[in-house]
Formats: sequence, C-alpha cells, structure tokens
Amino acid sequence: MRDIVKKVIAGDVRTVARLISDIDDGLPEAWEILKRLYPHTGNAYIIGITGAPGVGKSTLVDQMVGLFRERDLTVGVLAIDPTSPFSGGAILGDRIRMQRHSMDKEVYLRSMATRGYFGGLSRSTRCAIDVLDAMGKDIILVETVGVGQDEVDIVKSADTTIVVVIPGMGDEVQAIKAGILEVGDIFVINKSDRDGAEATHNDLQNMISLAQQKYSRKNWVPPIVKTQAVQGEGLSALIEEIDRHKHRLHAEAAAGKAARKTEQIREVLAEMLKDRILEKVLDSLVRTGDFDRTVEAITDGKLDPYTACDKLLQDKLNAGFQK
Amino acid sequence: MRDIVKKVIAGDVRTVARLISDIDDGLPEAWEILKRLYPHTGNAYIIGITGAPGVGKSTLVDQMVGLFRERDLTVGVLAIDPTSPFSGGAILGDRIRMQRHSMDKEVYLRSMATRGYFGGLSRSTRCAIDVLDAMGKDIILVETVGVGQDEVDIVKSADTTIVVVIPGMGDEVQAIKAGILEVGDIFVINKSDRDGAEATHNDLQNMISLAQQKYSRKNWVPPIVKTQAVQGEGLSALIEEIDRHKHRLHAEAAAGKAARKTEQIREVLAEMLKDRILEKVLDSLVRTGDFDRTVEAITDGKLDPYTACDKLLQDKLNAGFQK
Repeated sequence: MRDIVKKVIAGDVRTVARLISDIDDGLPEAWEILKRLYPHTGNAYIIGITGAPGVGKSTLVDQMVGLFRERDLTVGVLAIDPTSPFSGGAILGDRIRMQRHSMDKEVYLRSMATRGYFGGLSRSTRCAIDVLDAMGKDIILVETVGVGQDEVDIVKSADTTIVVVIPGMGDEVQAIKAGILEVGDIFVINKSDRDGAEATHNDLQNMISLAQQKYSRKNWVPPIVKTQAVQGEGLSALIEEIDRHKHRLHAEAAAGKAARKTEQIREVLAEMLKDRILEKVLDSLVRTGDFDRTVEAITDGKLDPYTACDKLLQDKLNAGFQK
Repeated sequence: MRDIVKKVIAGDVRTVARLISDIDDGLPEAWEILKRLYPHTGNAYIIGITGAPGVGKSTLVDQMVGLFRERDLTVGVLAIDPTSPFSGGAILGDRIRMQRHSMDKEVYLRSMATRGYFGGLSRSTRCAIDVLDAMGKDIILVETVGVGQDEVDIVKSADTTIVVVIPGMGDEVQAIKAGILEVGDIFVINKSDRDGAEATHNDLQNMISLAQQKYSRKNWVPPIVKTQAVQGEGLSALIEEIDRHKHRLHAEAAAGKAARKTEQIREVLAEMLKDRILEKVLDSLVRTGDFDRTVEAITDGKLDPYTACDKLLQDKLNAGFQK
C-alpha cells in the first residue's frame, strides 16, 4: 500500500489509472490509500466545466489544456458523464478526444462514467480529484456532461466553475436552471458566431443579476465570455477571467474569509457520508435477503412500501440511533 | 387523519394539494397518510415524459390531456423540475401552462420543484403519484425537465415512458444519453417540420437498435413518432402507440411476466430506504454537532475527510450493524 501511495505521488500513470478504477469500483483498499494521499493534496487548482450536451465543452477543454501547457503548467482532465452507464464508451471517447495532447506526458486524461447501484459519482469524482492533485497536477479540469443536479454536485468541488452555453438553444431561460446559476463563476457563450448570441448574452446577464440578488453575493459578479472554441477565439479572455477569479479567491483566503473552502468541505463530507451509509445499510439489507423478501411482500400486496420501509429501518437503525 | 384519507379518495383538490406540499416538506404525518392511501392505488396508468429543456414537452402534455379528456378519462399531471430550487416559480408556471384545462375539474395539475438538502425528489414524485392515483385519476402524466440521472430515476416509475427530442439539437448522439435510451418506451421527434428531422430519425433508429441489443429486450421495439405539438399533429399516432404499449404490458402481466412491476417496486423501495436512512443518520449527526465539529477539524487540517467519514459512521452505525 505504501508502494502505491509513493507511485501516485511520483506521478506514475498506470498506478493512477488503476487506483481511479478501484475508487470507481468502491474497493475498500482504495479508501485506505486515499487517506494516505490526502496530506499530499491541496496544491492543484480545480476548474469545473459544465453545460448541456453539444455546446462544445470538450473542444473548450482541449484548447484550455493547450494554453495551460504554454505556461508550463501540468494538467489533469476528468471527464464525467453521470448519465451514461457505458464506461467502455467513455474510455473509447478519450482516445478520440484530445488526441492533440495524447503524447504530452504532463497531461493526464481520464473519463468516469460508471455509477454504482446506489449512486456516488460525485464522491468518486472528488476522490479522483484528490488522486490527480496528489500526483502533482497544477490544474485539474473537471468536465461534466449535462446540467442536472448530479452535475451541480460535481462542479461544487471546483475552485472556479465555468458554465458553457450556445446561442439559439430554444428557451435559454429554461436551459440554464437556477442550480447551475448558483454555482457558475464564469459563463461562456461558445459558438458565439451563431445567430442569437446577443440575445443569449442579454438573457444570461439578466439571470446573473437575479441570481446575485437571490444569493446575495456581492464580491464576485460572474463575467460572460464569448468564445469560438474550434478556432480558439476568446480562449485567452477566458483564461484571464479564470486568473482573475483565482486571485479573488486567494485574496479572500488571505483575509481569513475562506467560507468557500469550509462550504466545500461540508459538501464533500456530507456526500461521502451519504454514500458510505447507503453502502453499509443497503448492502446489509440486500445481503441478508430482507430486501428481496420485502419486495416480494409488496408485489403480492401483503405490505405497502411505506410501512415496509419503516419496518426495515427500524430493525436496522434502532440499536444505533434510539438513544 | 382518517378524514384526510377520505377527502383524498373523494378527490378533494385542496386536501390533495396540501398533502403533496406536506410530502415535499417531509412531514411525518404525510408518511402515515400515504400508508393508508396505498391500498387505494394501482388503478392509474402512469406515463412519463422526459427530454431536454425547450423540446416542447409542456405543449405535448397539454395536447395529450385534451385527447385523454375526449375519451372521458380523468387526468393528473405532475411537472417535476429537479434542477430548480425555486418552487414558487414552478407553481407560477402552472398558471401559465395548461390554461386551456384550468376550468376542467377532471384535470389536476401540480408542479414539484423543491429538493430537500439530502435529495429525495424521485421519492416525493413517487408519493405524489400514489396520491393522484388514490384520488382516482385514470391517467397520470409525469413530465420532467432535463435528461440527467434524476429524470431517469423519476420516469422509471412510469408504465410508459416517452422521450422527446427535436431536430437539430447539435450532437443528437450525445444529447440522448444511454440511461434515457434504456428507459424510453416511445420516442417522439417534436417540431418535426424543422430541418434535420430525417437525420434525427435515423440517429434515433440506430441508437434504439444498439440499446435493444445491449439490454436484450426483444418484446418491445420503441417506436418513433413525429409530432408538431403546437398544431396537434402526430398526437393521435402518439396516443395509439401508448395504447399499444399498454396492451403489451397487460398481456405480459396476464402471462405472469410482471417483471417490470417487481423491478419498479425494487426501485421505489430502494429509493425510499435511501432517503429515510439519510434523514435519520445525517440529521442525527447534524443535530449533535458532530458534523460541524468534524468539518472544522478537516478545515484546520487535523483530519482527512476519509478518516473522518469512517469515524463518524463507526460511532453511529456499529451498534446496529456490527452483528
């Protein structure tokens, strides 16, 4: 185990890949290794990128990797797809995406698409971020597909979160939901040469103003950056905004106002607890056959699911919780 | 309590509205009422409708309601928005949507958008379906916004699930994720007068074939229906496909192959257990201050989150689970 920890810290790509698979599979050994890696984390800057499918996130990420590499920063990329049960497809996708950087040893790319029966992708992502952080990446880009609650949970781990939209997606006001607005630090209008870019810009501006009022954030007004990722246009403006946001966070931290960090730790811990509790309790119910027997009783109409749920938990939790 | 149960069964709209709010708020009384309502459920036919924002789901639902009403069927509509924390907005939306049916006593429309700190929207939805079922609705339409895992979980409760897309949404192959393909019983290409409808049709057809192979479903090949919901075009073809799917399910059930029903009960029970466990365990950790103390220790660098998680759960769960 100490050997694995050492290899990860030394940046050994095969060990890292194996470890992330083990995390994905929920192996207990991986959990122990994460405990030992944690003291080596905290140096990477984490950037989350989210947005609906088809807005060009992968191309943006690819271009960003190029610009960070020009600065001699090492980069890790995690591409997370909560809706796809095909991890094979995701890994195949890696080879197609980002071919440009595939020979660059300082860039590590990894897709995560699996999702255990009882959830947990945002925890796995958090763990994978810790691994890439411990392996010494300066920048970690976490790209998620989609704009659901899963994605919001995942990008909450980021220092800077980028929300990508394109012009003319129909109801823009519908397309970017409030949860995403709350977490967005920078908004990108990609494919900004398309019709409707100005309308999208105005819509976004209005929504940002509303969100600022609602969440009463005063110290950071999310900027909107127009890009055409395929041509690389607008990319340096985007990187500048990331830098500006990073400096803001550092200034806040220096002034002792690290509220965001504490909030992130709250989220991470709550997330981990959730997954671990479910693993322990549900696994135990499944293993003992209680779960299947109960499903059968409900199917046969002998029990309603509400009473069944109460009964199962009463037996399991009371001993630990009644006091 | 018996009074509330009676009123729900009698179809009293105000009691139903109040009960669904109580379910959303997680009141323990609501849970007890659900136990008593459950024996009165099982008569409604549940149709799930999902798809990205802007594809015209609301208009489709509105038209479907009209057609079911022509058959003298009573209809309940649940509009679920997992990504929006603004329940006020959702309820306001109700008044704008479906004005056509607002005077019809046999149509009940309800939005759900709240999401507790520890999740649980798909459980709330399942409970609300039971309420509308118990109140005597023949058809329950469950409309979700988005195509994430939340939406997949929600539509899993449906007897027939409809996935709605529109032509020219960019990468169609990306836009409909595998999870959605797995649950789709009928696919609708709405706004089918737009450019690219044929290409979208071909893409869908290919994806359905692949999914059929992957999940080795042989007894039902999801049909693709082209609609223009605003004009009402294609709607009767859609209703026909729903009927056809319903007959298939009934034939299977009659032949003793009610695998789908059992699978749904498994899902529902697992979902309920998850939420209730989290409520009990996390609430207890928060209430005792253990959670906050642990967050502080991690923030101060005295503890890593992995070890912290193990410690918290060890104390809480061991008594009930060690044996």
